[in-house]
Amino acid sequence: MRAASRRAAAIGLAACAASACGQNGGNGRNGGNGVEDAATVQEVMAARGLSEEDLLAAAKTYLPSGKLDEYVMLTSGGQSGHLLVIGVPSMRIIKYVAVFSPEPWQGYGYGGLGDEVLYGQGQRGKKRLAWGDTHHPALSETGGDYDGEFVFLNDKANARIAVIDLRDFVTRQIVANPLIVSNHGATFVTPGTEYVVEGGQYPAPLGGGYAPLSAYEDEYRSAVTFWKFDRAKGRIDEDASFAIELPPYMQDLADAGKLASDGWVFLNSFNTELYPGTRGIEGQPPLESGASQNDMDYLHVIDWRKAERLVQEGRAREIAGIRVLPLEVAARERVLTFVPEPKSPHGVDVTPDGTAIVVSGKLDTHCTIYEMSKIKDLIERGQFAGKDRYGVDVLDFPSTIRGQVQVGLGPLHTVFDDKGNAYTSVFLDSTVNRWSYERLDQPVEAIPVHYNVGHITAVEGDTVSPGGRFVVAMNKLSQDRFVEVGPLYPQNFQLIDISGPKMRLLYDMPLPLGEPHYAQIMRADRLETVQVYSPPGVNSYTGELVPGAPTAGEERIERNGRKVDVYMTVIRSHYTPDTIEVNEGDEVTLHITNIEQATDQTHGFTVDMYNINLSLEPGKYEEVRFIADTPGVFPMYCTEFCSALHLEMAGYFLVKPKGAR
Amino acid sequence: MRAASRRAAAIGLAACAASACGQNGGNGRNGGNGVEDAATVQEVMAARGLSEEDLLAAAKTYLPSGKLDEYVMLTSGGQSGHLLVIGVPSMRIIKYVAVFSPEPWQGYGYGGLGDEVLYGQGQRGKKRLAWGDTHHPALSETGGDYDGEFVFLNDKANARIAVIDLRDFVTRQIVANPLIVSNHGATFVTPGTEYVVEGGQYPAPLGGGYAPLSAYEDEYRSAVTFWKFDRAKGRIDEDASFAIELPPYMQDLADAGKLASDGWVFLNSFNTELYPGTRGIEGQPPLESGASQNDMDYLHVIDWRKAERLVQEGRAREIAGIRVLPLEVAARERVLTFVPEPKSPHGVDVTPDGTAIVVSGKLDTHCTIYEMSKIKDLIERGQFAGKDRYGVDVLDFPSTIRGQVQVGLGPLHTVFDDKGNAYTSVFLDSTVNRWSYERLDQPVEAIPVHYNVGHITAVEGDTVSPGGRFVVAMNKLSQDRFVEVGPLYPQNFQLIDISGPKMRLLYDMPLPLGEPHYAQIMRADRLETVQVYSPPGVNSYTGELVPGAPTAGEERIERNGRKVDVYMTVIRSHYTPDTIEVNEGDEVTLHITNIEQATDQTHGFTVDMYNINLSLEPGKYEEVRFIADTPGVFPMYCTEFCSALHLEMAGYFLVKPKGAR
Repeated sequence: MRAASRRAAAIGLAACAASACGQNGGNGRNGGNGVEDAATVQEVMAARGLSEEDLLAAAKTYLPSGKLDEYVMLTSGGQSGHLLVIGVPSMRIIKYVAVFSPEPWQGYGYGGLGDEVLYGQGQRGKKRLAWGDTHHPALSETGGDYDGEFVFLNDKANARIAVIDLRDFVTRQIVANPLIVSNHGATFVTPGTEYVVEGGQYPAPLGGGYAPLSAYEDEYRSAVTFWKFDRAKGRIDEDASFAIELPPYMQDLADAGKLASDGWVFLNSFNTELYPGTRGIEGQPPLESGASQNDMDYLHVIDWRKAERLVQEGRAREIAGIRVLPLEVAARERVLTFVPEPKSPHGVDVTPDGTAIVVSGKLDTHCTIYEMSKIKDLIERGQFAGKDRYGVDVLDFPSTIRGQVQVGLGPLHTVFDDKGNAYTSVFLDSTVNRWSYERLDQPVEAIPVHYNVGHITAVEGDTVSPGGRFVVAMNKLSQDRFVEVGPLYPQNFQLIDISGPKMRLLYDMPLPLGEPHYAQIMRADRLETVQVYSPPGVNSYTGELVPGAPTAGEERIERNGRKVDVYMTVIRSHYTPDTIEVNEGDEVTLHITNIEQATDQTHGFTVDMYNINLSLEPGKYEEVRFIADTPGVFPMYCTEFCSALHLEMAGYFLVKPKGAR
Repeated sequence: MRAASRRAAAIGLAACAASACGQNGGNGRNGGNGVEDAATVQEVMAARGLSEEDLLAAAKTYLPSGKLDEYVMLTSGGQSGHLLVIGVPSMRIIKYVAVFSPEPWQGYGYGGLGDEVLYGQGQRGKKRLAWGDTHHPALSETGGDYDGEFVFLNDKANARIAVIDLRDFVTRQIVANPLIVSNHGATFVTPGTEYVVEGGQYPAPLGGGYAPLSAYEDEYRSAVTFWKFDRAKGRIDEDASFAIELPPYMQDLADAGKLASDGWVFLNSFNTELYPGTRGIEGQPPLESGASQNDMDYLHVIDWRKAERLVQEGRAREIAGIRVLPLEVAARERVLTFVPEPKSPHGVDVTPDGTAIVVSGKLDTHCTIYEMSKIKDLIERGQFAGKDRYGVDVLDFPSTIRGQVQVGLGPLHTVFDDKGNAYTSVFLDSTVNRWSYERLDQPVEAIPVHYNVGHITAVEGDTVSPGGRFVVAMNKLSQDRFVEVGPLYPQNFQLIDISGPKMRLLYDMPLPLGEPHYAQIMRADRLETVQVYSPPGVNSYTGELVPGAPTAGEERIERNGRKVDVYMTVIRSHYTPDTIEVNEGDEVTLHITNIEQATDQTHGFTVDMYNINLSLEPGKYEEVRFIADTPGVFPMYCTEFCSALHLEMAGYFLVKPKGAR
């Protein structure tokens, strides 16, 4: 770290950038690099016009221990397959929720009932899927505001959607999309959570199957899927869902209209060049170049209410079990209309009032603000500039926009506050830029972030009533920000106070596991969580009480030939029964209830060398089936430190070998 | 969360306990619970005698963004199977390192070379082990101080040890112990890292195999294993390692002597009652009671240098491939001696000067301080009070101790500072107690923690020269400390400033994933990490350059019958080649080099629906072998946001179905 400190000093501000960058150690005994940092601190505080009062104010905002955060940030874990819950403004990570990847602390994917969600639902192909590339969480909404009931999350790598119940932060459902092979414009919800929107990304033959890349234009397609959400059941209803066939452009991000744009969904795209990569042909440019030749790509404007009606009228055809509105129908009926957008866009973001759609083109220096009333008007009047090669009407670009705002190099994504401001992440400049989406002639304010921001997120930012106090920059690089722990760096979230006349960078937070893409921040008081499953015997993956879940006094071991059923209860600090003896080859089923009803009294359960680990929260029921195929003596014990006698919370699982006396 | 806030207010100090507990929001616009909290703040600060200056000092200690932490805390992830790296004093989690569990962000266990470590090494039994119950990390030491080169970690559930290289924080080796079925007194190192010590916990027949519980006293045994560490190779040398057979007591924690106690290892134990659980017999007490009847258990005092010599002299017998010094030899030669210790102890901790060993009995209210010189003297003089039922000499308790200190209900574990103070975690009282191990008559100072502290750890605390600035309390419960996110709560680490005349609680940190047991805190400037693998083509799991790793210009696809070898390079923002077509059933091997040499320029690689995900840090080589058994069109793309053209960093993997033209 000495080397790192030297580098840090060398790059000046970048090494010590946030408002709270203080002296090295309150008690002044903070070791070798104290002098460097002390110098840097003064520079930084001066450069940012920060006084010790600012620091104190910042401290009171996010230091207090035991004070509950006002907001929770729900972020994807990227390729880790998790959903993260982060307190804001403290920027403490409260929980990693297992969604698409096995996670033994939560006992998800290690022999219990969670295996039915992880490995039972949403499997496709011949390899068992044990991870997901999560990108964009979407909180359920009522009337365009977060309602704190559910969050949805996508798996880009395998075109899947997960439903997480916010009562207990447990993954309830994973749905695979058999139409497409990858998604990206997912998940986004309509203002009443009627539908969870899943836009595709890399085209392929719809419904799977093979076609050569030479058939890319004719046989490859994309789709946007509208998953019907049954709020009462807390499940996606696959039979009530539908999709719309799209051209084989590479669709990117999506957003649902609200208020003035309610009933519409917006999807942007890149690679309108239809360039599928080099196809292994010498001298061909790579995809990144071949897909970046046109000056404009197409913003997809989708009338989902009309699409829903046409599907109900039987205009869809079924592909791989999903009702799909064909491209020609979508085009003819103007369910799908295109508007030119600056090349290779990333974010498409609807303003809180729904009157405008902000598109950021990564290879452009502007944000383009589209006027929904103009788009609607042109479509209603049938006034189009032409058609794309698949027969989709294309509107005239200048006639659709409110205007453009120059924000810098590589604008990616835009969020909003409660005062008519937009905040755009600018990747190449490494800044967050604040500008007015109501008065485009207002000056743009930029604040540097460290480094290379991807998405950003604002408190209640995707609703009809944003909170307007904080923005979090989700930065992709973090060199020199934290102690170096090898070639794989954490990402870096930076908390920005947007409540004042000038934006202020308050805090750096490393992401220790995973690479989040997008996040939403909700008022914590919208949550109504369950702390104990009551009465005991609940399957946390269905949320339902399990008939026959063992309770105190009903513990027993039942044998029927090769089948052994163990009915076990768990409470501080023992398992009943605590000794199980079976014969090699027996089919064992453990039925386990944690009969604790006190909060935070979780127990674990493992059988050594059987790759079983369960997390038994108070009142939870678990069930494990396995073949006792390894003979020997195996401790079973509590894997969650639960009491002073935790180590004594154990027993033996014995497997008598064939032929033993 | 309103409910939670009400609860928080109701429980007063506990709800808002740390020094920095400030007003709700620096800008005073922090919503509904602002008033409650503001009230609580004043109470708390008054109660703790804290001024705003204290808060400011604390803020400067751990708020600064971009300031590098002076210390890194390496903690186990418990049943998550990870090692965590946490910056101290900022208490930011910098990295979760995958060790015993698959982790897709790091590309560990998802098709690449890491699979050889995770699934190739250290497997036992018939089920594939895909997790570990990590407890006690041990940093490598030179002369009794941390040297920053390696960290070792145990898996209690499957009796395994991992070696993690601190140059890049990658897991290099997993070793299974075929003698035993569970460990707990692991990992601990001798002062020169000659050996990594692994003490067992739940006894079973040595070397595996079956014996009924009725044979517990005669056929069940435990063992302590001394794994020889080859520092030059960075590997445990299994052939040069040995073990000592122990009675079937349940051994608990361990520590290695240093300075005055160099050459010795200490292991404590519980269940000297030899109670193996109810055996399913009605009316029998559970293990927790049956194992807690005796007033005293046995502290195991082990002369490891003598054991090493006896093993070299051929006094060991081989069991399951390990040289084991038989119990009768260990007893007769006084390699193993017992000292009575208060019932059901947990921590056994050697003081920095090595003169004393502190044992905490969970069911006792004291810490017992043993005097090494007295123990050595009695053993040398052959002066024993008796023998245990296995023929091991037992010393006279009063003759071995320096004294006892009353610390409260449920003392678990003790660490040390640079001023002759010991810090003991007291589980039932939920306090950390400071007392002098040099002058036992000094008063004991207690500071409350929230809630129920298990282990604690001090900066450089397990060395011959502790740092003496901070202690971290590793608390097991956290209700009311953070926004409630369901029945499974985070653990809570609390940072305590021990530099002043009174201990001060500075910060609460939730543990979002896993349940750590123990941690060590090291000066960050001891680390010498690698940020880029150079030259490109390094297998990060061996640390070696791979001959034939593809470099720029050498990319190609080679076909030999059913075997297809793809030699690929990766650099912003493309794969070469970016199109791969194979036939259904082909055996595909991808050889991939990330030829980037810039820090933090990591790329990912996935093939959709093939459950493959790699993390390609700069200069890293990866290799994936699989059967192309699912026909179709599968995007392959970069799963780590790497540039403005990240989404264009993609290509197609095509699998032509059998019989397709």
